[in-house]
Amino acid sequence: MKALVYHGPGQRSWDTVPNPTLQLPTDAIVKIDTATICGSDLHILKGDLATCPPGRILGHEGVGIIDSIGDNVTTLHVGDRVLISCVSFCGKCYYCRRNMYSHCTTGGWILGNEIDGTQAEFVRIPYADTSLYPIEKGADEEALVMLSDILPTGFECGVLNGRVAPGSNVAIVGSGPVGLAALLTAQFYSPAQLIMIDLDDNRLDVAKKFGATATVNSTDGKAAEAVMKMTGGRGVDTAIEAVGVPATFELCEKILAAGGIIANIGVHGTKVDLHLENLWDRNITITTRLVDAVSTPMLLKTLCSHKIDPKLLITHRFKLDRILDAYETFAHAAETHALKVIIEA
Amino acid sequence: MKALVYHGPGQRSWDTVPNPTLQLPTDAIVKIDTATICGSDLHILKGDLATCPPGRILGHEGVGIIDSIGDNVTTLHVGDRVLISCVSFCGKCYYCRRNMYSHCTTGGWILGNEIDGTQAEFVRIPYADTSLYPIEKGADEEALVMLSDILPTGFECGVLNGRVAPGSNVAIVGSGPVGLAALLTAQFYSPAQLIMIDLDDNRLDVAKKFGATATVNSTDGKAAEAVMKMTGGRGVDTAIEAVGVPATFELCEKILAAGGIIANIGVHGTKVDLHLENLWDRNITITTRLVDAVSTPMLLKTLCSHKIDPKLLITHRFKLDRILDAYETFAHAAETHALKVIIEA
Amino acid sequence: MKALVYHGPGQRSWDTVPNPTLQLPTDAIVKIDTATICGSDLHILKGDLATCPPGRILGHEGVGIIDSIGDNVTTLHVGDRVLISCVSFCGKCYYCRRNMYSHCTTGGWILGNEIDGTQAEFVRIPYADTSLYPIEKGADEEALVMLSDILPTGFECGVLNGRVAPGSNVAIVGSGPVGLAALLTAQFYSPAQLIMIDLDDNRLDVAKKFGATATVNSTDGKAAEAVMKMTGGRGVDTAIEAVGVPATFELCEKILAAGGIIANIGVHGTKVDLHLENLWDRNITITTRLVDAVSTPMLLKTLCSHKIDPKLLITHRFKLDRILDAYETFAHAAETHALKVIIEA
Amino acid sequence: MKALVYHGPGQRSWDTVPNPTLQLPTDAIVKIDTATICGSDLHILKGDLATCPPGRILGHEGVGIIDSIGDNVTTLHVGDRVLISCVSFCGKCYYCRRNMYSHCTTGGWILGNEIDGTQAEFVRIPYADTSLYPIEKGADEEALVMLSDILPTGFECGVLNGRVAPGSNVAIVGSGPVGLAALLTAQFYSPAQLIMIDLDDNRLDVAKKFGATATVNSTDGKAAEAVMKMTGGRGVDTAIEAVGVPATFELCEKILAAGGIIANIGVHGTKVDLHLENLWDRNITITTRLVDAVSTPMLLKTLCSHKIDPKLLITHRFKLDRILDAYETFAHAAETHALKVIIEA
Repeated sequence: MKALVYHGPGQRSWDTVPNPTLQLPTDAIVKIDTATICGSDLHILKGDLATCPPGRILGHEGVGIIDSIGDNVTTLHVGDRVLISCVSFCGKCYYCRRNMYSHCTTGGWILGNEIDGTQAEFVRIPYADTSLYPIEKGADEEALVMLSDILPTGFECGVLNGRVAPGSNVAIVGSGPVGLAALLTAQFYSPAQLIMIDLDDNRLDVAKKFGATATVNSTDGKAAEAVMKMTGGRGVDTAIEAVGVPATFELCEKILAAGGIIANIGVHGTKVDLHLENLWDRNITITTRLVDAVSTPMLLKTLCSHKIDPKLLITHRFKLDRILDAYETFAHAAETHALKVIIEA
Repeated sequence: MKALVYHGPGQRSWDTVPNPTLQLPTDAIVKIDTATICGSDLHILKGDLATCPPGRILGHEGVGIIDSIGDNVTTLHVGDRVLISCVSFCGKCYYCRRNMYSHCTTGGWILGNEIDGTQAEFVRIPYADTSLYPIEKGADEEALVMLSDILPTGFECGVLNGRVAPGSNVAIVGSGPVGLAALLTAQFYSPAQLIMIDLDDNRLDVAKKFGATATVNSTDGKAAEAVMKMTGGRGVDTAIEAVGVPATFELCEKILAAGGIIANIGVHGTKVDLHLENLWDRNITITTRLVDAVSTPMLLKTLCSHKIDPKLLITHRFKLDRILDAYETFAHAAETHALKVIIEA
Repeated sequence: MKALVYHGPGQRSWDTVPNPTLQLPTDAIVKIDTATICGSDLHILKGDLATCPPGRILGHEGVGIIDSIGDNVTTLHVGDRVLISCVSFCGKCYYCRRNMYSHCTTGGWILGNEIDGTQAEFVRIPYADTSLYPIEKGADEEALVMLSDILPTGFECGVLNGRVAPGSNVAIVGSGPVGLAALLTAQFYSPAQLIMIDLDDNRLDVAKKFGATATVNSTDGKAAEAVMKMTGGRGVDTAIEAVGVPATFELCEKILAAGGIIANIGVHGTKVDLHLENLWDRNITITTRLVDAVSTPMLLKTLCSHKIDPKLLITHRFKLDRILDAYETFAHAAETHALKVIIEA
Repeated sequence: MKALVYHGPGQRSWDTVPNPTLQLPTDAIVKIDTATICGSDLHILKGDLATCPPGRILGHEGVGIIDSIGDNVTTLHVGDRVLISCVSFCGKCYYCRRNMYSHCTTGGWILGNEIDGTQAEFVRIPYADTSLYPIEKGADEEALVMLSDILPTGFECGVLNGRVAPGSNVAIVGSGPVGLAALLTAQFYSPAQLIMIDLDDNRLDVAKKFGATATVNSTDGKAAEAVMKMTGGRGVDTAIEAVGVPATFELCEKILAAGGIIANIGVHGTKVDLHLENLWDRNITITTRLVDAVSTPMLLKTLCSHKIDPKLLITHRFKLDRILDAYETFAHAAETHALKVIIEA
């Protein structure tokens, strides 16, 4: 089959590779219909993830049809149309018993990372019963593929951890795809203010269309003042960090109200300064999280009942054999204005 | 009357000062029976608290008898024996309505800080109805005075924020009075392990007597390894920081299990390094809190039902007119082995 | 002044009575601008409430202007425009300290019940600081008066207690004003299904306009079957009882999913059958609650940020001196299709 | 092998039956070392459970050694010593994903009920990975077998659902084995009062030894008055129903404080009267639950760290081939004072 293969930092190609095969009785092989590219795929391509060796097929998002299943897959059948979760989990280990599927001792986010992924014609999915979700025939696959990773990530790490609530004031730092996913899912809880902060006016315009009540371009270094003014000097109840660098995390520290929460989504490569000399008596909470995909069933229900429109995130579409162009488009988002790019088989 | 007065960094004296008088109809004047000294009194004496000007009577802990009350105090009477909370609160403002009494816009921890305190013959208590707790005649005043500040601080900032739970693994970094208060109140929730970490073997011995299941002297810089070993390599579910310097906070970061909580109690004077490059995907939580004294009624019940023995914290006793000696003893805890020193009228 | 006075079962009149005066330093006198009538006013008129004696001025909802204040009211001023909460609370007692303001030992729902109420030119409000909410000049008083009682009641007793959540299935039994208030506020949490059940097709039509995803007329006795069918045989996660008779409560028992919650809002006059022989192993929860008005600040924020439109509930308007006509209209809702009737000064 | 077989209402015998065999790749066969008898075994023997047909081997509690395992059991090995949970669960279905293992669509409490049980030389355990817990060599099997059912039942249905908390007032109605299990595990949370209510003075004496702070013999019909007096007229914060008849449930309604919780453990055969005419405005909660065994890992930790001594529940011991005598002893608890009887292989 054909697949997008990582060949070490900065190198990828559209290769002919062997088809995946069932390895364990809990596996399924899925024929990919729709996939997409994630910011973490770009991280891997830069060589940032030691867990992902050269030769790996990338991709951890997708929708497809079950092609074959292991003997111990009990809830799915060949021919079922399924959503692929970015998180595979055994359901048995210490962490799974605590619903921390991201830390499953034999799973977690392994797809397109520790094992071959979805940017291919076929993919092997471990723990198929818990990692695949049957979908209705006729369901919108493009909307569904947003539930593989980006929506649960924005929702669990940002909105749930940030305890967004009716009437609360929320700021989201970073208006890229994951920040926008947080913005979309924060609206499940009807906050009073949803302030979006970014350096890029185009992305802030998109945020407005997605439901931001205000936007702040932080280029001038005065974002904190602007947010404090918008919140009557009190700061926000929830600050969602969706970038992953010290400056954005520290901005969250500055705009947080007493009693507030910083919910970190960003992937950080270095330490940040935590100003406990200012924060020790402010009754604040800081959270981190790798998506557990524990909310996927709930997100499917909100999608089916039209409480959310994740297709808003889709800006471009490519056929699978043009995936290298898709990568180019996605990697140059500042110029292309790409958010999520759909890859169709 | 006589009172312990702060006269600027490093200076205190036992002065004759005017008696306090009622200023608002919600005030009460309390004649002090029993008081004690807190680590934050020492901070003030060092000049660390800009909120506390020279001329201030120190002290925010005490038990006494109501001497006079304002017209709008409705639940207390002259002659009532009362516990004084370190937190005064209006019960009406934005923060009080959220039970964040520490951030009351006209209260919080103001006693012996922004207004005169309890290390005197008499003290004025604002918002008497919510800041004083009637106690039974014959109740143990020495035990009760531990409920003015240190027990609610250890409990709310450490144990409640740290979500200590039956069967969980807990480490407390710092075996001084507030760390020991956390140790005592953590046992309300029957954790499996209560590991106490300090540099001082004497304090660790005390911790063992107070219920620590293990102790670690961190002098050798190998505390993190020791704790990881004790927890099967997984780390602790709750790490309570009860010192307030970067090294102890960063130790908490190192010993925390995936999914765990760092509950900060320590008063920090400088920033700390938050290693998000290691922690961003560990599903952790960090909390800070100034005591709200929201748990005082509950702590009174556990005291009355003998679920806790806070007198364990008391090492020395002085008459009120020897309070300067009490300060000397408390300030040189390494030599005197002082934990809490009782000041009796 | 003029006021609507209850004179015993079935008897009310528009009387000239003395103006209210300040009785305690925490009181305020409010000149009424806008009031409304509640279902519980009708209960009182039937003689159902032993706490409300003849001679009482009715009404516990209103918006007005502060005419005078007691010496100990610290957060409000004469001339302030205010929303009146149906719950008055001291903020000091055992129950207030637990945020159960409805059970305040000297407050709770006393207005227009144990003390004179708002269907008059002036009203005395106890505990003014915690029971009145300043509102912006130019704010929509008709919308605001819905926040005196009906919205917090539907929200706290129905939606909060019922833990309505994104993607969940909710049924509300009773499409009268309070059921509709639950319907409006349930949408803060984006449930997947909001099924409204009533005997009256007109009220069900209203419910559809207010956001119900489905309606069931229960006249045929087959409502339970209909709801089970709509929920794939599983039942609803939340059943909100908004009527107050055995038949509707028992319908909630029948349509509840394993793990679900019955949140009772209805005022019940007799016992109901709880079928524990069916429910003991179903992991269910049943809650009751008298509104605490603890959510009023939050509801004000959602109103100001246009997350809710409570004016949808208003069907009729009367001048204050035609309040007897307003009562007639409200009491014959089946014919007049009245939901909430506005009384304007 | 030999096994205790149910042969229809009132009939049981110690029969020779075929050994169990692996049926699914997720099964394990366990050789029983230690078992016990549960009150629900007696219910089955009376013919109360339609789910349990004649011919069934009874028993859902036990400790043993794995004799053989299916191909898809990944976390256990032949020869492992294991605790058997009364709940078997797939970990994949709608209810398992919500941690409601008791409602697993292909599991739940099926052992000794819908499939053959543990009162035999060998037993087949479905979903072995999630339903068996490896235990240390040398661990106390008699203590451990109390974790198969009775401790998680008392803890989850009574203590967790009842939100027992430090300083709270708790009453447990029914001082049989399950009520006593609730009593033991309630102490994890340091409540101020633990009032035990029963008709049998012997069982109340046992309760005192187990940590009850007070006992009430309800024979005289004045238990409610007694409890109200003990709680200053306010009632209890948590009432745990551990009997399962209308009189005891209705006693819980009478002794509940405003804001309190009735946590039902009892297996009810008929409806009860729920006095909503008294309770609709009392802000109460009622819960039911079939044990999910979700707390078993935590209970194992509290056992290993000596926070609980479940062997207190054991009153008698029998060899496996004398299990009919064990049943006699257990069934006549009033005379034999039996609580839990150990069956040893």
